[in-house]
Formats: sequence, structure tokens, C-alpha cells
Amino acid sequence: MTPGIVTLTTDFGMGGPYVAAMKGVLLGLAPGAALVDVCHSVSPQNILEGAFVLAGIVDAFPAGTVHLVVVDPGVGTARRMIVVKAAGQWFVLPDNGLITGVLHNRKPEGIWEINNPDLARPEISATFHGRDIMAPAAAHLLRGGDPGKLGPPSDAFLTLRNFEPTPTEDGFIGEVVFKDPFGNLITNLRADHLAERPADSWVAEIAGQRIEGISRTYQDRTAGSLIALIGSGGWIEAAVVNGDAGRHLSAGPGATVWLKPKT
Amino acid sequence: MTPGIVTLTTDFGMGGPYVAAMKGVLLGLAPGAALVDVCHSVSPQNILEGAFVLAGIVDAFPAGTVHLVVVDPGVGTARRMIVVKAAGQWFVLPDNGLITGVLHNRKPEGIWEINNPDLARPEISATFHGRDIMAPAAAHLLRGGDPGKLGPPSDAFLTLRNFEPTPTEDGFIGEVVFKDPFGNLITNLRADHLAERPADSWVAEIAGQRIEGISRTYQDRTAGSLIALIGSGGWIEAAVVNGDAGRHLSAGPGATVWLKPKT
Amino acid sequence: MTPGIVTLTTDFGMGGPYVAAMKGVLLGLAPGAALVDVCHSVSPQNILEGAFVLAGIVDAFPAGTVHLVVVDPGVGTARRMIVVKAAGQWFVLPDNGLITGVLHNRKPEGIWEINNPDLARPEISATFHGRDIMAPAAAHLLRGGDPGKLGPPSDAFLTLRNFEPTPTEDGFIGEVVFKDPFGNLITNLRADHLAERPADSWVAEIAGQRIEGISRTYQDRTAGSLIALIGSGGWIEAAVVNGDAGRHLSAGPGATVWLKPKT
Repeated sequence: MTPGIVTLTTDFGMGGPYVAAMKGVLLGLAPGAALVDVCHSVSPQNILEGAFVLAGIVDAFPAGTVHLVVVDPGVGTARRMIVVKAAGQWFVLPDNGLITGVLHNRKPEGIWEINNPDLARPEISATFHGRDIMAPAAAHLLRGGDPGKLGPPSDAFLTLRNFEPTPTEDGFIGEVVFKDPFGNLITNLRADHLAERPADSWVAEIAGQRIEGISRTYQDRTAGSLIALIGSGGWIEAAVVNGDAGRHLSAGPGATVWLKPKT
Repeated sequence: MTPGIVTLTTDFGMGGPYVAAMKGVLLGLAPGAALVDVCHSVSPQNILEGAFVLAGIVDAFPAGTVHLVVVDPGVGTARRMIVVKAAGQWFVLPDNGLITGVLHNRKPEGIWEINNPDLARPEISATFHGRDIMAPAAAHLLRGGDPGKLGPPSDAFLTLRNFEPTPTEDGFIGEVVFKDPFGNLITNLRADHLAERPADSWVAEIAGQRIEGISRTYQDRTAGSLIALIGSGGWIEAAVVNGDAGRHLSAGPGATVWLKPKT
Repeated sequence: MTPGIVTLTTDFGMGGPYVAAMKGVLLGLAPGAALVDVCHSVSPQNILEGAFVLAGIVDAFPAGTVHLVVVDPGVGTARRMIVVKAAGQWFVLPDNGLITGVLHNRKPEGIWEINNPDLARPEISATFHGRDIMAPAAAHLLRGGDPGKLGPPSDAFLTLRNFEPTPTEDGFIGEVVFKDPFGNLITNLRADHLAERPADSWVAEIAGQRIEGISRTYQDRTAGSLIALIGSGGWIEAAVVNGDAGRHLSAGPGATVWLKPKT
């Protein structure tokens, strides 16, 4: 049997041993699983950013993949932990809105609470449920276990309101959701928000700058130009050709972006 | 047969190709091994920090795991390299104190020197024994090889003196050992140092600040509060709720921490 | 059958989900492949740095390894993508000079263009050929596929001119190629450039500083000394014992280095 795939997305940073502890638990309970780090540099406790990162990689993974996602400011409080099945894949995460992006354009095929202590580690730290509860739950699914053993089915899940931009009379008001390592500013505006008009008839405004038209590649303009383009995840992003848009605009996550027709 | 697990802990940083070179050697000699990065951002040549990082993850890994640990300021000099067996797991490292945390509360089940050139790479760089000597030794163990083939048994190993806090009349003087990516300051004070008195009867002093009581979770106090709590590794840490204690206190590894009864 | 090894070298940075997307495609098409991250912090679009990083790890990997290398400023333009076979290993990369270091002292055993849409993902983003074209090509090779199915054989490939230092009357003018996470400045000068004279009869000049002799290890001089030594990859580097040469010299990639006989 091909070993299952488990991805890890957290706000634990690259420097600490916390990610490795989760991997030890995963490999101890599901030997042979293929581990893939998605991103551990989600800004601390930034659930919206985590939701976007997760949504951006789902289509690249095969059915059966288990995604373990731990951006969990409420750890140790009464927040629920859940398993969601969607796109034939599994998502193990706190029920705090992290699943918003995955379920934005997909129906959940099932949701279960995680509350069976028999499938958690014997000793549960008050500050690290990723290692002690969610990693064992992910390992249970990797071994082909029944999600219903983890806890009762559920049909509720929290959704983040600012995942979607706000429609205006003739466009949208969105926001920068994360800055990638190149300095590109990825927004919550998508290609389908452009659908009715050609890409070059739109204007994006961000941090006081006006960008005319939506480019196809980073090389459509000369070096140093500020451009907007549809990134590889399907979201509109602001970029500087061969440069760093975040630094150029002094802008980052949370910055408002207007998308409107050229007049 | 399930492939073995090998973890890697180094001070090589995230940016260079040195870690990958060790992985190439490991996979070349022990195909199918599961590689887990623990941490490559141990401060350069900081053996104490490496010892803590390593100690914090042992319990998360299953028996048989091989831990390759390379924080090795003495590379190219006469310092020994050793294999230690403890907790049913293997540790391959320079004998410079890195094993201190693992053996703090565990008996070694065996110690061997590494000095058999037949189990090293044919060409040995003077500056990279991690790749040329220790990775092949780890691969030998991953393949189920006899540790005695690597070199003679030994019963000596170096121990770091400042791993343990200093007892005072009614408490302890310890120090910050590392700052995790959230800015939490992890100390060498442990839960068992509190044993005789309830957690809220203690005071921690660090960088001129006084913290009353030891909290259970990061959410026990309001945002911005400076707290002390027992972290997921069992060590007492200073944290700021939803914030960065290192920045708040302008403190980092080496800072002194007093633990004393409330008066 | 032992699963194949695939390494990843990019300029995507550590923070984004782009690397994970490529891994999802690789594992979806070549289940069980062993993934090794070489380096994702190549400076954005710095092909020379990518070429050096890649050249430095080849000897550590076994025959059959597939190296996926994506430093691709020309993505979306007409630049070619190629597969190169050398040292019994496979290299999948844009034809922009990235292969220079690998082929510097090795004959190519075969070169093929990558242009078969049947072996790419059905939808191809204009900005992410690493995920949509090169990762599927790498997976094809991991499964033992015929490279000739990816596209026609070729015998041309781009070479970077500044990979080699310039000979002078009695020495060489080279440059710093990358700064490793310790701050060591790795140059494009190699041990074989010293061949005719003993190591201690050379002088290296960099950023206005003169370094006499080429040391064997980092510990040959006292802490704080600026030294030159032959690093584990075979290139001459400037280092500060227990320190950071980049900070000490305020120098980094691109800085000129003179290698000349002591007079």
C-alpha cells in the first residue's frame, strides 16, 4: 500500500521544535506516512492567512491527503476541534474559521468533532493540542480509520467573514491577505470577480497607487513596474517586476484594495 | 519493513545546502528512511540550545528513531563523536554536551565512540563531519547495523553544567535557554522545581519584571499580560498573551531567571 | 522497489505555500517518492547562486536522484525547460544557466527539451511552471519514464559566464557567490586553482582586507580571526572564526575576490 500523505500548516515558525514533535507523533502512529510542510510562517494566530494558504494548495494534492492545520489561538479554551472531508481530502483543524477557504467553493462531504480521548495521546498539554490531539487524529485517518470514531458528526463550522471581498456598485473592496516571500501582496480578490469585463478594463487601487489592467505574467512589464496579476492560486496579487511590492508600497496583510472598472 | 525515522537538528540555518547534503548521504545509504527536520536554527555553535531542543522532542518519537544532531564548533579538532542509546532511541552527535538534556532524566542504554573509517565516506572534509562521518553512522543504525561496528563502547560523555538551575535557600536561579519563534522565553526551570508548593504561590523574576503565579494556558490572562507558564516541553517559560515576550522584556538566551516563593 | 529521491531547490522563500504545491503534484504522480528540500532561500531570481547551491550537493546524492530546480525569472516567456542527465542523476530546470555548475566538471549524458503537454498538468498557470510543467516532468522520471517522452533530445544549454573566475598573470579574480547562514562568504574560486603552490603561499583579498594563507578548518586560528579556507563543497570561502564574515566585511554576493601569490 502506498503510504498516505499528510501536510502540515502552522504558525509555529521555522525555528522551534514544535513541528518536529507533531511529526514524531504522526510517524509513530502512522509509519511510512509522507510528510509535507506547507507553511509554518503563518503570522502568529492569523487565522485568515492560514485559511488562504490552505485553500491555495488543495488542488495540488491527491484524494486521501490529510491536512493538519494548527493556527490555534484558542488552544486550552473550549473551542472545538474538527475533521472536515472535502475534495476527497481530510482536514484536521480547530473550528475557528481555518476551513473557510477550502469550503468557499466546495461542499463538505462530512464534518466530525474530535473529542475521543482514546484516540489522543495519554497526557494532554494545555498548550499543544496540535501534538497531543490533532496529530493523533490525523494519524488515525492516515491509517484509514473511521472519522466517526474521533467524535460525533456535526454540520456546523465557523466561517471568516473577511475571506470574501465586499461588492460595490461596479466593483469590489477587498484586502491584502498575505505577503509571499517575494513581497507579492496576495489579495482576497479572485479571477472570477473580473468575469464580466476584460482584464485590461479594470483598475486596482492599493496604498494610494493605481494599477491599470491585470497582467498575465511577471514579465509583461519592465523591471520595477507595479502590476496586478492573477497569481498561481487564482487570487489577484500586486507585484513589482523583479522587485518587492510589499516594500515598494509599504503595505502588507490588512491593506485595503479597490477593484473598479477603468473610467 | 517500515522504514526507519531519522531526525536532524543542526545550527546550519535554513538557507544553506548543508542539511540537504546530509540527507543525500542518509538516503543513499538507507533508502526509504523517513527524514524529519527538528530545527536548523539553533544559534550558531550554541550547544546548550541544541541540547534543549533535542530533549524537548524525544518523547514524541517512537523507539528505534535515530537522531542526528550536529552543533559542532570543534569539527576538525580532536573532539569525539559518539552514539548514545536512550529511551530505545539512537543519538548520533559530537561528544560536546549535546546529549545533556536527553540523559538528564534517562539512563543511557549504551554509548559507543564513532571512529571506524570503513563506515564513513571515503573522503572526509575537515569542516563537515556531519555529512562525512555522522550521517553515514546514522544510516548504519537505520539499516539495523550493530553500533559496536562504529567504534568501541564507552561510558563517558560530556555534560553541560548550566543545563540545571542553581538551587537557592527557597527557590532556584535559572536562565533563559531559548526564544521560540513566538518570542516565548523558555527557561531551564521545570515543573518539578515547583513540586512542593502550589503553582500560584511562586514568583518568577526576569529582566527586572516580576511575574506572580504560574499560568496553565496562554489564555489565562488578558492580551498583553506577561505570564509564566509550563510549556509543552515541561519547562517554565515567560510569555506575553498574544505577544512577544522576548521583545517585551528585551531579553533572550542567557538572561537570568529567579524562581522564588511569593512572600 | 525503493522509492526514488527528488530534491527541490528554488527561490520561493521559506514562507509561502508554493513549494508545498509542487510536492503535492510530485507525490500525486509519483507516490512514495522521498522529498528533500535543498534550499528555498536562493536570492530571488539569482541564477548564479542557484547554480552553485545545486553543484554543491550533487556528490552527496545517489544515482537516479531527480533534482527539480526552479529559479525561473523568465517564467511565462519563451525560455526553454530541459532535462539533463549527468552523474547518473536527473536535473529538471529552466534552460537559463542553472545547470552550469553541474556540467562544469561533468559531461552531460543526455539533454531533452520539456514540451509535451500530455505530461504536464491540464491547466498551466502563466506564472508557475514549476508546479504545472516541471514537477510533472520530474514525477515522470521518478516513475522510471523515458526522458524522450518529455520532448526531443537537444545538445544546447545555456552557461553562466561568471561561474568561472578570470585568470590573471599569477592568480585569479573571482567573486563571492553566496553567503551561507553562518555568514561565510563562498566564492567561485576552487581548491584546484591553488594546485601549483602550497596553500599557505596564497593571499586572498576581499573588501579591502588581506587574508594570508588558506586554512584547513575553522579552528586553525583564534576566535574573531578572518580566514580563508576550502569549504565542504570544494570552494574557497572567507570566514570569521566563531563569527560572521559577511557582517565583518560588509560584503556579500557579487563582491570581488583576488587570489594571488604571497610576495
